[in-house]
Amino acid sequence: MLLTILDYTGTFVFALSGAAAGVRQRLDLFGVLVLSFAAASAGGILRDLLIGALPPAAIRDWAYPALAGVAGLLVFFCFPLVHRLRHPVQVFDAAGLALFAVLGTQKALLFDINPLAAAMLGIMSGIGGGMLRDVLLAQVPQVLKAEVYAVAALAGAAVVVAADALGLPPVAGVAAGGLLCFVIRLLAIRYGWRIMTARWPGTGDGND
Amino acid sequence: MLLTILDYTGTFVFALSGAAAGVRQRLDLFGVLVLSFAAASAGGILRDLLIGALPPAAIRDWAYPALAGVAGLLVFFCFPLVHRLRHPVQVFDAAGLALFAVLGTQKALLFDINPLAAAMLGIMSGIGGGMLRDVLLAQVPQVLKAEVYAVAALAGAAVVVAADALGLPPVAGVAAGGLLCFVIRLLAIRYGWRIMTARWPGTGDGND
Amino acid sequence: MLLTILDYTGTFVFALSGAAAGVRQRLDLFGVLVLSFAAASAGGILRDLLIGALPPAAIRDWAYPALAGVAGLLVFFCFPLVHRLRHPVQVFDAAGLALFAVLGTQKALLFDINPLAAAMLGIMSGIGGGMLRDVLLAQVPQVLKAEVYAVAALAGAAVVVAADALGLPPVAGVAAGGLLCFVIRLLAIRYGWRIMTARWPGTGDGND
Repeated sequence: MLLTILDYTGTFVFALSGAAAGVRQRLDLFGVLVLSFAAASAGGILRDLLIGALPPAAIRDWAYPALAGVAGLLVFFCFPLVHRLRHPVQVFDAAGLALFAVLGTQKALLFDINPLAAAMLGIMSGIGGGMLRDVLLAQVPQVLKAEVYAVAALAGAAVVVAADALGLPPVAGVAAGGLLCFVIRLLAIRYGWRIMTARWPGTGDGND
Repeated sequence: MLLTILDYTGTFVFALSGAAAGVRQRLDLFGVLVLSFAAASAGGILRDLLIGALPPAAIRDWAYPALAGVAGLLVFFCFPLVHRLRHPVQVFDAAGLALFAVLGTQKALLFDINPLAAAMLGIMSGIGGGMLRDVLLAQVPQVLKAEVYAVAALAGAAVVVAADALGLPPVAGVAAGGLLCFVIRLLAIRYGWRIMTARWPGTGDGND
Repeated sequence: MLLTILDYTGTFVFALSGAAAGVRQRLDLFGVLVLSFAAASAGGILRDLLIGALPPAAIRDWAYPALAGVAGLLVFFCFPLVHRLRHPVQVFDAAGLALFAVLGTQKALLFDINPLAAAMLGIMSGIGGGMLRDVLLAQVPQVLKAEVYAVAALAGAAVVVAADALGLPPVAGVAAGGLLCFVIRLLAIRYGWRIMTARWPGTGDGND
C-alpha cells in the first residue's frame, strides 16, 4: 500500500521532469504528454518486463498514465510556477531517481530475485525513465554525464538490499535508501560534486 | 485473419517509412534494411512484450522480417518512385501509425487487458516504430514534434475501445478507428495543424 | 558450459567497447560503468526478453554486471593500453558482435524458436548492445552506417542455423559462425569494404 503510494509519487515527479524538459524544448501539448509518460513509466515498465510481471503496472493500472497526464498538463499550463524551482528538471529527476531505485529494488526482492540482481534492477528502473526522456530529445542522458548520478541510485539500492538481509521491515529500507539517494543527488547538484574523469592523451580525438 | 493482413500491411508501410528515412540519410543497403525492420517491428514487438505474447509475432512469423526486407529493397532500388509521393516518410508513417494503433488496441483487448490500458498499448505500438526509427537516426522523434501525431493515434484507439464496449464486431472498430487516425494525421500534415505550444518567458534558455 | 564462457567473453568485449566509447566522450567513472553495462548487456537482455527467458541472464547472474564492471574499470584506468589497439571500440565491438550473434541464435534454437526467427534473434542480440551504446551517446549507431556490419552478423547466424539443421554439434556451428562473422567484420574495417549506398537525385535534401 505504502509502496504503491510511493510508486505513484515517483511516477508523478518523473512525469514533471519529462514535461519540464519537453516544455523547454518547445514541444506541443501532446509531445509534452508523451514525454511525461515516457519519463514516468519507462523505468517501471523496464523493471516489470525484466522480472516478468506482465502486463506492467504502468500499463495495467490507469492511475499511472493518469498521474503522468496530470503532471504534464500542470507543467504545460503553469510552467512559471515550476520554473521558480531553480532547476526543476533536475530536482524532480532526483526525487524520481530515489523513489524508483529503492522501489525497483524492493519489488525485485519480492519476486525472489537475488540481492545483487535486485539492486541492478533497482538502479535500472531508477535511471530508465530519465534515460528515455533524454534519448527522445536527442541528448546524451544525464546519468552518463551528471555529477554522482548512478552512484546515488547505487547507494539507495544497497540500503534496501542491506535492510532486507538484516530482516528489517521493507518500509524502513525503502525510506532510508530513498532519502539517502535523494540527498546525495541533491548535494551533488548543489555543490557540483564530480567523480573523476579519465583524461588520457589521445582521448576525444574523433571517433577512432 | 483480416487482422493479420492488416498487421502485415502496417509492417510493410512502416518498413517503407524506415527505408525512406534511411535512404535520405545515405545509409548503405544493410543499414536501410536494419532501419526498415526496426521501424516496422518495434511497435509490435513492444506491444507483444508488454502483454506477454512471447516470442513476439514479428520474430516468430517469418512474414514480418520478409515484408520489411521487401519494403527495404523496394525503396532502396526504386527510390525515385517512392519519392514521387511528396512526403513519402510521413505518408507511410501515417498509415503505419493508424494500422498499429488500432491493431495494438484490438490485440490487447483480446488478451483481456482493460480498455484504458488497451488504448495505451495501442498508442505505444502505433508510435513505437517511428520513435525507434528517428532515435536511431539521432533525431527527435516526429511524435514529439509533429502536428497532431499522438492525438491521431489516441482517436483511433478510442474508437476501437468504444466499438468493443458497444459489442460491435472488432473489424468495424478497427476499420473506423484506423481510417479516422489516418485521415486526422494526413489532414494535420496537409494543413499544418498545430497544437498549442507553451511559450513562457524563460523557456528554451539552455538546459537549466 | 562452453556457451556460458563464450557469453561471458562477449559480455566482456562489448563492455570494453562501451567503456572505450565512454572514455573518448570524457564521461566520468560511473558514466563509463553505466555505458559498459549497457553495451555489454542490452543485446542479451533483449534476446532473453524476446524468448521469454526471465529474468534475463544478464540480471540474474552476478557475473555479467561484475564482468562489465571490471572491463569498465580496466578501460578507465588503463586507457593507454587499450588505445594501442588502433581502433579499440571497433575491434571489441566486432568480437562482441560475433559472439552474441552466434550465441543468441543458438540460445533461441534451444528455446525451440524456428530457424529464421532464431537467426533474427541472434542478429538482434548481436547488434543490440552496440546500438544502445551509440544511441546513449546521441550518435547514429555503427550498424546503420558501418561497412558490412549487419551482414557479418547475418553470416554468423546463418552458419549456426545451418549447422543445427545438419545435426552438427552446437559448438561446431557456434565456433565456425562466430569466426566467420568476426573475420568478415575485421576485414571490412581493415579494407574499408562498403556496401552500395543509394544515391538518387533528390535524396538527402532535408527531411521532406
